[in-house]
Amino acid sequence: MPVNAKPHPVWLPKEAAILSTYNIAGKLEGEGNFGKNYDRVIEDDLWGEGSWEKAESKMFEQAVTLALQRANVQAQELGLLLGGDLLNQIISANYAARQLATPFFGVYGACSTMSLTMLLGGMLQSAGYFDTVACATCSHFATAERQFRAPNELGNQRTPTAQRTVTGAACAVLGCPPAQGPHVVITGGTVGTVIDMGVTDITNMGAAMAPAAADTIARHMNGFGHTVNDYDLIVTGDLGKYGCMMLQELTAERGIFLEEKLFDCGERIFSDKQDAHGGGSGCGCSGVVLTSTILPRMLAGHYQRVLFMATGALMSPVSSMQGETIPGVAHAVVLERRA
Amino acid sequence: MPVNAKPHPVWLPKEAAILSTYNIAGKLEGEGNFGKNYDRVIEDDLWGEGSWEKAESKMFEQAVTLALQRANVQAQELGLLLGGDLLNQIISANYAARQLATPFFGVYGACSTMSLTMLLGGMLQSAGYFDTVACATCSHFATAERQFRAPNELGNQRTPTAQRTVTGAACAVLGCPPAQGPHVVITGGTVGTVIDMGVTDITNMGAAMAPAAADTIARHMNGFGHTVNDYDLIVTGDLGKYGCMMLQELTAERGIFLEEKLFDCGERIFSDKQDAHGGGSGCGCSGVVLTSTILPRMLAGHYQRVLFMATGALMSPVSSMQGETIPGVAHAVVLERRA
Repeated sequence: MPVNAKPHPVWLPKEAAILSTYNIAGKLEGEGNFGKNYDRVIEDDLWGEGSWEKAESKMFEQAVTLALQRANVQAQELGLLLGGDLLNQIISANYAARQLATPFFGVYGACSTMSLTMLLGGMLQSAGYFDTVACATCSHFATAERQFRAPNELGNQRTPTAQRTVTGAACAVLGCPPAQGPHVVITGGTVGTVIDMGVTDITNMGAAMAPAAADTIARHMNGFGHTVNDYDLIVTGDLGKYGCMMLQELTAERGIFLEEKLFDCGERIFSDKQDAHGGGSGCGCSGVVLTSTILPRMLAGHYQRVLFMATGALMSPVSSMQGETIPGVAHAVVLERRA
Repeated sequence: MPVNAKPHPVWLPKEAAILSTYNIAGKLEGEGNFGKNYDRVIEDDLWGEGSWEKAESKMFEQAVTLALQRANVQAQELGLLLGGDLLNQIISANYAARQLATPFFGVYGACSTMSLTMLLGGMLQSAGYFDTVACATCSHFATAERQFRAPNELGNQRTPTAQRTVTGAACAVLGCPPAQGPHVVITGGTVGTVIDMGVTDITNMGAAMAPAAADTIARHMNGFGHTVNDYDLIVTGDLGKYGCMMLQELTAERGIFLEEKLFDCGERIFSDKQDAHGGGSGCGCSGVVLTSTILPRMLAGHYQRVLFMATGALMSPVSSMQGETIPGVAHAVVLERRA
């Protein structure tokens, strides 16, 4: 096992404000715990398109287009679009970027994509390279299941640890802080390292991601000289029910006690009645929960400082078949309320 | 067709120096035009591993490790690793990042990855977020062919426009410019937009990428107020023989005459005797040619200012089967010699 990385904390020289957000969720998600909070709930997985993949790309494109409208930014003026998704060659993001015709960097961080794009976008906007940066991601139950696991038509029995890929897309537009009014800014964060504790079960992504989340939290707290008390909430992406238990144990071993400060988007997105087993997952999971629920609660004054840390299982059907284990990664972004 | 993006030129506030590079090439590449320039030529596509995918990931990891050694940077001290490759879920980069245990952002830009990581890495290093950033990519003939086209064992006849994926990996370590001695710095660049002119032929990647390259060159020259005369060389990634012809035509239509200033890594990497048809391709192609040949020629004083623009075809077997066309993207990085 290599020596662990140093903390390498990232401080933004100027605060990057979240100017606007937009999110789109699937039907089942719309019936879940945060159903009323979503900007748009689609009633049909195809959303008028000829394939689920095309519907997913449309969700990404629409989330960006409508977030830009809310921020009053013309696509032509947008300095940079940062985005990625779960599909091979990140086709949802690529085809959406083609429609949007904006400068575009594609990223791949599996389900960690929302915090990856927000940390990276915050750094680039804060440094003055671009006036505005759009950070976006999406996932779709039907496309992810058939790519990563089995044909959807098989109707396989799902294991208790299995999580359900969220159908959802989210975009956050970053720019200079407004002169007045409550808003949320990005002040810094910590880039994750790829951690692998030897999980091979492709139906237990939470276990593959929890060690990476624990590592990033430890490096983050160390680098910033913070403790859990410095945060009102620590939001993880999609560890799910079992991944959350693991994270609580792994951080406690390091003397970091998250306890009721931990809010996992995957664990919370579906209600207990929805038969989602371990919870939700997918890039869209943390994207839609952050933008629909966490950020509005911050704006309303419920939380002053939140650590947002989407978590990704870097799972590949090819490498799994070649006997490889599943590494994870988690990137942490510090969100603060300004009035 | 959406309105084209504005130029959005990227100027670095401080120059980011290329402290070191390392590259590794396959056997056929070692017999090609730049064979003597590579740091290492592997004699066997498996390089002692159990699969081509594992060999590819090892090439990535070794390129980073040895570039860091040359720059005298401990992996623990490295602020950020930026990398990606052609494989689904960028597994070569992910598994290498696991071994390296450094903070890591994964990117996906297909064959544009080398200039994507260098432009992004330059921006992050220049802004002071990290003292050092490693930018890396790789590709492998055997893994790419079977993922994107057909089982290697079929031995299909290749079309004249088909390019051969280069087996190669390259890394460039960026940091603060040295106090003395000739070195190459990144001074700025232009982020590409995703352009699609309707190409559907998965054996003609050059045609899919040339429109994106033309768009980025036009936006770059416009944004910086430059002409072709401001550059000693314009290096494209892997347009190949036919893509180069298209790029010459597409830029000439806009009044930009590249002519003998154009140097395409894909067109040049293999000799005419090597039966590589349209030329080389893959993320590794521009990576190994830049680090083995272009940068040393700059250090030797042959070129003062080079525009390095790796080009990517965002091709996906799934979307191709669903009737989608193949979009392209190209990111431009300005490299300048300092003495």
